[in-house]
Amino acid sequence: MNNHTDLITNAVYLRHHDVECWNFRAHHAQHLQRCLPNQRVLICENEKAFVAALPEADCVMVWTFKQEWFELAPRLRVLSTPSAGRDYFLVEPPPQVRLMYGAFHGCIIAETVVGMILAMTRGLLASATTLADQPWPRQELCSIIRPLRGSHVVILGLGNVGEWIGRMLKPFGVRISGLRRSLHRKPPAWFTPDDRLFLEDDLDAVLQTADHVVLALPGNEDTNGILNSRRINLLASHVTICNVGRGNAIEEMPLYAALSAGRIAGAFLDVFSTEPLPENSILRRCPNLWRLPHASAISEQYLDLYVEDFAQQWKEWAGMP
Amino acid sequence: MNNHTDLITNAVYLRHHDVECWNFRAHHAQHLQRCLPNQRVLICENEKAFVAALPEADCVMVWTFKQEWFELAPRLRVLSTPSAGRDYFLVEPPPQVRLMYGAFHGCIIAETVVGMILAMTRGLLASATTLADQPWPRQELCSIIRPLRGSHVVILGLGNVGEWIGRMLKPFGVRISGLRRSLHRKPPAWFTPDDRLFLEDDLDAVLQTADHVVLALPGNEDTNGILNSRRINLLASHVTICNVGRGNAIEEMPLYAALSAGRIAGAFLDVFSTEPLPENSILRRCPNLWRLPHASAISEQYLDLYVEDFAQQWKEWAGMP
Repeated sequence: MNNHTDLITNAVYLRHHDVECWNFRAHHAQHLQRCLPNQRVLICENEKAFVAALPEADCVMVWTFKQEWFELAPRLRVLSTPSAGRDYFLVEPPPQVRLMYGAFHGCIIAETVVGMILAMTRGLLASATTLADQPWPRQELCSIIRPLRGSHVVILGLGNVGEWIGRMLKPFGVRISGLRRSLHRKPPAWFTPDDRLFLEDDLDAVLQTADHVVLALPGNEDTNGILNSRRINLLASHVTICNVGRGNAIEEMPLYAALSAGRIAGAFLDVFSTEPLPENSILRRCPNLWRLPHASAISEQYLDLYVEDFAQQWKEWAGMP
Repeated sequence: MNNHTDLITNAVYLRHHDVECWNFRAHHAQHLQRCLPNQRVLICENEKAFVAALPEADCVMVWTFKQEWFELAPRLRVLSTPSAGRDYFLVEPPPQVRLMYGAFHGCIIAETVVGMILAMTRGLLASATTLADQPWPRQELCSIIRPLRGSHVVILGLGNVGEWIGRMLKPFGVRISGLRRSLHRKPPAWFTPDDRLFLEDDLDAVLQTADHVVLALPGNEDTNGILNSRRINLLASHVTICNVGRGNAIEEMPLYAALSAGRIAGAFLDVFSTEPLPENSILRRCPNLWRLPHASAISEQYLDLYVEDFAQQWKEWAGMP
């Protein structure tokens, strides 16, 4: 792989049992070969075919990987997954293998988040659920409907996904405060003088001035219960919460209590502490809590965007022009 | 009223029985007097007080006006309403009285429309209504969820409101086609080379390439049934329809038939041929048709925006700097 024209064998095992657009097809392979002409793509339809392809694989693209498979793949240098989450692989790769994660989800998830916020604040979800039986619920909607323009959106996790969310919210005339782990990296290009980056030390103070809280955090020990009972109690009564990161970040029972008591206006969750959400979860019986089944990134373009992102990361890693 | 410092008496009768934020309060009067210091604002709490104020009124701001009231108002020169619709006043004013309509609704309604489209295409409404009983409906959502990015949005009625809708949709990477009655007025400032204006002659052809159809049309004879049975049949199966203009523009029975047969993906209607929507309306029993009760412009800032818009129109009319 020192020469950019060396033929690379890429074994792709991307089969997803319940999300159709997350299955890698022949047209995705053609797209990949247009982006990286020196890659020979082997589409593996099942685990057996994938394991059989491992001995010749220089690179693999997978949803899942087992620790023992590394021993079967002596040529392997790159292990790539579309997932953005570092919590996704539970393997420890040998030192010569590089893990690559998807960084393309933002433009998809940002649409979902803008939709979540507007669907709550413009009364669209309330009119379709709690008020659905009423023929003309204008009075009831008056206490729910709010403008997005002029509001303060707090994004917990201003990484790849969080930056896209902020970028798509800015044209609505909002002010953005974005939580980061450190302030080393420069602010997003769309920042205006109203916007700011902040660290967890300031989280309590920032939450008290929030109109909307969006969570786009990775799932790890640092983010466990970052939106805990105490912090939920700091929020104003008109606040909405969206979580498209990982379910570990919110303490779910205090969230349920605050929502059902009307202490906050609403929440739209895509992720949960236990997934799939158990049938008897109390979160399924909360009228101002709406849910997606970890689906905020579903898109027919998902794997095409992954292919382009992978090709870009591959070229940077391989020092290609 | 020849001298800009002449004191103007403005009788305001803006009471709304079911939308709280559409009631004119003292703070709105203060805002108006900051914008137009030569106006003396009389807030009328009921029709009797308003009628009593008419003899001295140079200007009135109202939701409704009766033809016989003109005889009681010899000084009247301006009759203003927050409503955008020319169908709102059924009066014929004497020649010296100018009618002024609100032109400030766009920035509010555009939020509602972006929310409507994203709530449909990102599966938010389906997951909260038709799929609400399923604990983890990923497979079901796969056939519903689509990206907004890259799609073609057709806006029927690219006036004040339609232009705001297009402006708020453009950052999502969409192409806009806007129907106008004539092509005399210049295109919106946010137009890119992808976007176009078109006339009704081209409507059939444009609808065949639409991903989303938004109606923001005035209610009059020209717009009656513009989206009729024949045109609904031209639409692709993934199309969504939003109507925030007037209910006369869509033939409701063919829309219901297309939606319930799955021939189009979904519709979100704020306006109806009969308002309030009758309790026994078939439109209330269509799972992929969602409804607001003519509420897309509700906002706590509604009357402040009206005051600013009125002041601007007043200054232009009075030749004020």
